[in-house]
This record gives sequence, structure tokens and C-alpha cells, in this order.
Amino acid sequence: MAKIDFFYEFASTYSYPSAMRIDDLALDYDVEVNWRPFLLGPIFKAQGWVTSPFNLYPDKGRYMRRDLERVCEALGLPPFKMPKTFPAHSLLPARVALCFSGEMRAAFSRAVYDAEFAHGADVSDTKVIEKILKSLGEEPAKIFEKVNTQAIKDALRTETEAAQKCKIFGAPAFVTEDGELFWGNDRLEAALEWAAR
Amino acid sequence: MAKIDFFYEFASTYSYPSAMRIDDLALDYDVEVNWRPFLLGPIFKAQGWVTSPFNLYPDKGRYMRRDLERVCEALGLPPFKMPKTFPAHSLLPARVALCFSGEMRAAFSRAVYDAEFAHGADVSDTKVIEKILKSLGEEPAKIFEKVNTQAIKDALRTETEAAQKCKIFGAPAFVTEDGELFWGNDRLEAALEWAAR
Repeated sequence: MAKIDFFYEFASTYSYPSAMRIDDLALDYDVEVNWRPFLLGPIFKAQGWVTSPFNLYPDKGRYMRRDLERVCEALGLPPFKMPKTFPAHSLLPARVALCFSGEMRAAFSRAVYDAEFAHGADVSDTKVIEKILKSLGEEPAKIFEKVNTQAIKDALRTETEAAQKCKIFGAPAFVTEDGELFWGNDRLEAALEWAAR
Repeated sequence: MAKIDFFYEFASTYSYPSAMRIDDLALDYDVEVNWRPFLLGPIFKAQGWVTSPFNLYPDKGRYMRRDLERVCEALGLPPFKMPKTFPAHSLLPARVALCFSGEMRAAFSRAVYDAEFAHGADVSDTKVIEKILKSLGEEPAKIFEKVNTQAIKDALRTETEAAQKCKIFGAPAFVTEDGELFWGNDRLEAALEWAAR
């Protein structure tokens, strides 16, 4: 079965619609999805950006919000809602995601995106993550203990370095087994088609 | 009949596939296309950019080239070919385009994009534009005389200011009669659908 790497960042608005639809869509293409959370911060910093380009360039930021309202409506997702603080500090949800694997990582990630962009929650808030973990039947205290271990810290650093090696400069990004890179929610179908052929 | 403004910049790689397909596609949606060449330079300068973001951010630039190879292949366009100098200095073709109106402006614009991104020509070169004009049955000397009139200079300034008023920050961009802005070749279908409804 063909595989695809799905690189996503919890602060990334366009990663949200991809996270909500990639697993269903991948079934149609018979492609296995590897969910890989990473941090865009170090990559943006290397480009000289201290925050999201959507904050650096206000017209682009305003457009992105309107575009995502339309994209979410077209996909049948709840009305798009920006959290008060943007971009979110995504370290906590990214590390928590890496405490899980397989379907559980995907389910946790979708729940984070839903809280963030359908309900405007601050996903850097421990209480928000705690609520999500409980809703998934997990014991938050157990996970939070794991989150601060060196193994999980290293795992996130490894994922971010892997993204850099793939020359990823934004999220979401999709990388096929033969190393083809696709960027953006608009390229999800093309990436899966490439992976499947 | 519904109308749409198609804002394009001759140096913009993603404007190319939109220029090649917008008129045929607009027929399907029963929408009239208003071809509006403008200059991104002043808009980029206001954002603090001295050149294309594809030059400022090399990973993004490399990705854009690869992505356009795939996009052109998928659309049945000739193999994508970057001109040696990028971005092209687009003042000359933009002013020439404004010497024409209607179908002639569209035909000239498509011919410029074909020379630039299917054949790698430098469209700031008077000889390249001369050849294109001849191929369209125009008298280059007559057009070049018109190009340097104050009326044409003002027309291009007016188009660029109109783009700025629409909060356009990149090309191609599509603006419907009710002021809805769509950015990028990937949004052409959505823009036409919006215009038609």
C-alpha cells in the first residue's frame, strides 16, 4: 500500500481543512497516511520571519480569513473561527500528538483543530488540551507526564528537522515515498494521486 | 451577464495558467472576463519586498518551479520553462496590453505568457514583443508609439491603484462585481462560480 507523509502544524489555518479530510480521501486513493506534526517556528525564523506571514502582511492575513470561511463552507465544515491569539503557540499540542501513534494521533489532531478553528479555542492552554484528551477517553495526567520527557521533546525536534530536510517552507505539506513535495490544502488531491500511481 | 475582473501581472508565473484557461472556462459559467494587467512591484515594495518572494525565499521558489511543471502538465500546457531573468520587468508588455481592449488584449496577453513560460523568452525585450505583435497582425511601430503616451502610462497606474484598492497582494487575482476577492490560479473556478451565482 502506498504511503504519504502529512506534515502539519497546529498553528496553521490551512492545515485544518486538510486534517479534517485527509483520512477519508486517502481511503479513496488507497494510500496510508503518516501524520507528522512539526513546528513551523524554526523554519519561519530561518526565513527571517518572527511571526506568521499572515500577521506580517495584513492584506494576506485578512484574505486568508475570508478564504478559509469559503473553504470551510465548501467542505461542509463548521463556520471558520479564528482564535484570539494567532498563531497559537503549538508546542503543547504537537508534543501531545507525538505521545500517540496511528489512528489515536489522527483523532487527537482533528480534535485540536476543531477546538481551534471551529470554536476559537487557545490550544496552547493546558485546560483545552485536557478537555480534548478526556473526550477521547485518555487520562490527561498520564499524558502530561509523558509530554515533558526527553523522548517526546526529541521526537518533535526530529519531525521538524525531517520537514526541513524535505525543504518544507509552509503547512500543510505532503511528501510521497519518491520524495515529491506538495504544499497547501489545495494540493491534497494531487498529492494523493501522485502517491497512488 | 455576470462580470469578473481578472488582475494579472506579466512577471507572475501562476498568472500564466489562469490566462491560458480563463476565457474558455468563463464561457462554461456564462461570465464575462475583464482582463486587467497591473504591476505587482509597487505592492511588493509596500510590503518591504525588493523582488519576488520566490527569489527572497529560495525553497519557495524551487517549489514553485516544480509545482508549475506539474500544473502545466495537468492542464495540457507545454512544458513549463522559466525565463533566465525572473521576475521579468513587466512594464513594456503591461503597457502594450493596455493599448488594446477586449479579445485583442486577451490574445496579446496569452501570447506574452506563452513566449515567457513555454519558451523562456524575456518579455521585457522589445524584439520579443515586436514578434508577438506581428504574429497577431499588428504594426509594432504604431503600438510602440502609443505605449509611451501619457494616456497609456496613466492607464497602467490606474490599474495598479485599482488592484491596491481591492487589497490585492499577489497575482493572479479575481474580483467579482460584489467585491469578493479570490487569489491564485487554484481559485479560478471558485471565483467564476461566485461571479455566476
